[in-house]
Amino acid sequence: MSDAEFFFEQIRSAGCLSYLLGCVREKICIVIDPELDKADDYVGLARFFKSKLLYAIDTHTHADHNSACKVMRERHGVQVVMHAETEAPYVDIRVRDADAINFGQCSLQVIHTPGHTQDAMCLLFKDRIFTGDTLLIGGCGRTDLPGGNAEAQYHSLLKLKALARELRVYPGHDYREAVSTLADEQQKNPRMQIASKEEFVHFMTSRKPPLPRKIEEALEWNRTPIQGTQRGSGEGI
Amino acid sequence: MSDAEFFFEQIRSAGCLSYLLGCVREKICIVIDPELDKADDYVGLARFFKSKLLYAIDTHTHADHNSACKVMRERHGVQVVMHAETEAPYVDIRVRDADAINFGQCSLQVIHTPGHTQDAMCLLFKDRIFTGDTLLIGGCGRTDLPGGNAEAQYHSLLKLKALARELRVYPGHDYREAVSTLADEQQKNPRMQIASKEEFVHFMTSRKPPLPRKIEEALEWNRTPIQGTQRGSGEGI
Repeated sequence: MSDAEFFFEQIRSAGCLSYLLGCVREKICIVIDPELDKADDYVGLARFFKSKLLYAIDTHTHADHNSACKVMRERHGVQVVMHAETEAPYVDIRVRDADAINFGQCSLQVIHTPGHTQDAMCLLFKDRIFTGDTLLIGGCGRTDLPGGNAEAQYHSLLKLKALARELRVYPGHDYREAVSTLADEQQKNPRMQIASKEEFVHFMTSRKPPLPRKIEEALEWNRTPIQGTQRGSGEGI
Repeated sequence: MSDAEFFFEQIRSAGCLSYLLGCVREKICIVIDPELDKADDYVGLARFFKSKLLYAIDTHTHADHNSACKVMRERHGVQVVMHAETEAPYVDIRVRDADAINFGQCSLQVIHTPGHTQDAMCLLFKDRIFTGDTLLIGGCGRTDLPGGNAEAQYHSLLKLKALARELRVYPGHDYREAVSTLADEQQKNPRMQIASKEEFVHFMTSRKPPLPRKIEEALEWNRTPIQGTQRGSGEGI
């Protein structure tokens, strides 16, 4: 199966990361670690890819945000998948280490990685691994919350260390600031490296990416007064 | 003024970035590029810092999302600040290149950077610059939307190139994926580098960070069935 045969979206909700993953051919998709506030977004994305949302998978029992699993189950008939150790009562399919979660021709391999919680698991898919809170970029889930166990977490990280080093890590959170420096941008940002005005203008005008999805709504909103009122005349500071 | 004398938060709403910035002593803060869906968050953050939210500043007229400026103006009496070239009719204070936006003892310096839009500006504050869509990490705002001008954008980037290279760049968007590799994590992630179980357990258990803010609500939600229903018995795949 080539990359073109699956679709993949990372959906961010503040520091929480969810993933929509689906088979192009069979038009079946799943969502990993859905967040309650974004429930409609996953459904909309599944629709965008003309696919049926089959499973909502939580990599573990979250202690910091509300899962959308049970809402998606009730409202959209999505089946909820979690590790067998979970205490969550709304789980349709309980999986264990080395199980496969199949959807269409796609398959996720379960790796049980207790430590952050007893029911934590990572999900291996082709060139990538969804690590939940077991492994974060630059960190790992804490082990002092309910179900946490530092020794188990050590062994779970050992399990991950034994996997192929090229695997792309997609974690359950990313709290890092989005920041750079002018020096870095001058060194790495292609737009900062074009030395002549003519080349720059050519570069910027030669492509026409699609318009922002909400451009009409946004410009209408951002250019009109609220409820017809118009306070203030716009003095300079 | 030392770092401890101002507070700073980057607030993410999908790919949009907003910033709350305030003076500790005078308890006055401002928000840069507030996004409509997060309006309550900025107000809540200002309250958390026991500060008055004085200004809502848009770095430009956004074409991809709805600004919260006019809502915050109506509901919370916040004054809206934009560049004088803006067409937005709800602006209280129109600023120009080299103007200072003062709040308490803090001061933002306006740098007019047309190109993405005619009313685009960057805001310089101490060791950092808020670049809106003029400069993104690894890119820059497009110039083919209403008000865009590639030649002006070239000159605006030249303006930024002339600034101190150490300046920290805080852009208006960051669409980059949160992804790493197992190799990178093994090399850079401190949690992956602890070689003995004993050291790891000591490290993980010796600190007690504060509990997640919503832990009780989240665990209650994530461990209970919806509306008392309990479908399915939890079969293995």
